[in-house]
Amino acid sequence: MSGGVSRAAKRLDGRRVVVLGTGLIGTSVALAARQQGAEVWLCDADPGAQRLAADLGAGEILPPGGPPGGRADLAVLAMPPRAVAAALAHAQADGLAVAYTDVASVKLLPLTQARSLGCDLRSYVAGHPLAGRERSGPAAARADLFLGRPWALCPLPETAPDALTMVRSLVFACGAEPSVVDAERHDRFVALVSHLPHLVSAAMAARLAGAQPGALRLAGQGLRDVTRIAAGDATLWTSILSANALPVAGLLDETAADLAAAADALREVASGVETSGKRVGDLLARAASGVARIPGKRGGPAPDYVIVQVVIADRPGELSRLFQAAGDADVNIEDVSIEHSPGLPVGVAELSVRPGAAGRLAAALREQGWPVHD
Amino acid sequence: MSGGVSRAAKRLDGRRVVVLGTGLIGTSVALAARQQGAEVWLCDADPGAQRLAADLGAGEILPPGGPPGGRADLAVLAMPPRAVAAALAHAQADGLAVAYTDVASVKLLPLTQARSLGCDLRSYVAGHPLAGRERSGPAAARADLFLGRPWALCPLPETAPDALTMVRSLVFACGAEPSVVDAERHDRFVALVSHLPHLVSAAMAARLAGAQPGALRLAGQGLRDVTRIAAGDATLWTSILSANALPVAGLLDETAADLAAAADALREVASGVETSGKRVGDLLARAASGVARIPGKRGGPAPDYVIVQVVIADRPGELSRLFQAAGDADVNIEDVSIEHSPGLPVGVAELSVRPGAAGRLAAALREQGWPVHD
Repeated sequence: MSGGVSRAAKRLDGRRVVVLGTGLIGTSVALAARQQGAEVWLCDADPGAQRLAADLGAGEILPPGGPPGGRADLAVLAMPPRAVAAALAHAQADGLAVAYTDVASVKLLPLTQARSLGCDLRSYVAGHPLAGRERSGPAAARADLFLGRPWALCPLPETAPDALTMVRSLVFACGAEPSVVDAERHDRFVALVSHLPHLVSAAMAARLAGAQPGALRLAGQGLRDVTRIAAGDATLWTSILSANALPVAGLLDETAADLAAAADALREVASGVETSGKRVGDLLARAASGVARIPGKRGGPAPDYVIVQVVIADRPGELSRLFQAAGDADVNIEDVSIEHSPGLPVGVAELSVRPGAAGRLAAALREQGWPVHD
Repeated sequence: MSGGVSRAAKRLDGRRVVVLGTGLIGTSVALAARQQGAEVWLCDADPGAQRLAADLGAGEILPPGGPPGGRADLAVLAMPPRAVAAALAHAQADGLAVAYTDVASVKLLPLTQARSLGCDLRSYVAGHPLAGRERSGPAAARADLFLGRPWALCPLPETAPDALTMVRSLVFACGAEPSVVDAERHDRFVALVSHLPHLVSAAMAARLAGAQPGALRLAGQGLRDVTRIAAGDATLWTSILSANALPVAGLLDETAADLAAAADALREVASGVETSGKRVGDLLARAASGVARIPGKRGGPAPDYVIVQVVIADRPGELSRLFQAAGDADVNIEDVSIEHSPGLPVGVAELSVRPGAAGRLAAALREQGWPVHD
């Protein structure tokens, strides 16, 4: 599986998959698996959710005696963390599948519980797709929910290689990127990148519950972005957060302390004790460096590069002319982004180059008549 | 201006506008005003920013003697809160324009300072477009930055009606929605819907600054959304937050207390003192009701409605058939949303109806063969 994902690796033709739990994640997995050629059976304690998932084309309803033709290749346990181990024990006792995985947001708890229930840990690979929506239930499911998203896998020393291969095939079929990580580290990591953001978003959103209507009329996109995930299923999230309580609690304390310190700093500014706002500025600078570390270039260009801005016309061939000119000047463009306002005849190309090359690039482009801003 | 915005009201033909400050907001205002027919002059203390804005087509550079042909109709002061009053005093002394407005994120401070500097408050309407990006500078400007966004205006008792009319014309030219509000209330409102979200986002992002790389590899869309605004200009935001220090500090205290209480509640869960996670669940439920209050239906349907889910084929005419069937059953559809996974031949139409009508609608649709889920 190294060296990238081949198209062939993503298909699941001929594979037989059972999905237990047809909520948002389970139904989405089922849709993706079917799209890649797998035969899928569905089961949910809620007959309505099970029926809706089947009507959506996510698979057939699992007969009481198990999938026709004997055990499935893979069973996916798509349920909250605390329900996983018991479901695994039950499924293994029934001989439901050859390999098993789950999709719960914490990994130490189900693994520990599975071990104490005497589950067969050779055939089980704990997993966690880092994808979701603020909506829940099968109606919100999407076959493309996992495209390009990380999917943590936590194999144990005793995990059978075949089981890991099977579960990785499912991850690839979903278009996700497997990331193998130890369960304890996984839980600490998701406390930071998933559970803390959820509670921070919730604490912000909770302030709006009693707000004056006039304030909400001034709401902009920033507030919407910050609070989007707080609209998620409160019961499910209470169960997730409870299953990862200590790592999350520690991070909450640190965050609360930062906010309380910012409040103190602002009161000092208001009283004239301190006018520069330095402590608030320090928090914001730390925040910017944190955002810059999120994969996907959200925080701007890598700090080692310098940006040269060039105004370009919005017409075909303009960018290739610009790159040609940079190449002629022997300057390597490390990254480029285009800012273009709809309806305007011009935009700004922002060329990221190594610091030593910026002056040379700007001079060469200017010589050829490009409006350069550096 | 009542009864909606006519197309004519949005044009600024023949109007002469000076924009002082060609950062993100100033340049975006200038681009929008020019697109609606205004003649625009630009001025910025940074000659590079001024030049780039002019190259982008935002206007002509303001000559040292003021706009050719005498005073402009409107001058827009696009600068941080603390710089507004001095710039206003200076511009009024020069007779730069007939009317003045600013776009700073707080309103009490510039108004108080303008009053104490002896500015003419009849010609000045303090304003604040609730729009922005995590990027700054003229290269990030967009003529459509304000489309559909709220734009607060804080006229005083002494404000001349003509000045207010002129400033409202600019707001309409930008495609924004003016919202008249008292300056003190404005500042309290934006503390909640703009300044607190910024600091909450920053406190989350600050936790990432020292995080292990493995954790960041598991980052998903939720983290990106929550931290997006924390990538904004730290210097500008320090100045904004400092200018609205006390209202923001009070909200920060409340938020920090909620997070600290959530940490305590999680520790109780971990130690087995309390297993239900009720206190965390209560915070999440309060959060969900807060999100639901943000205009734009982000929090789901209005709580008075019940949703009936119907699986529909992805083909023309299907929705109109569904609505016809609902109409025949004499059921009024209050709202509808479609969930559709790319590549799937079916989707789910979610019909919001009054509680009393749900059973009738479901029965009528079932009778006609629709797969209904209620």
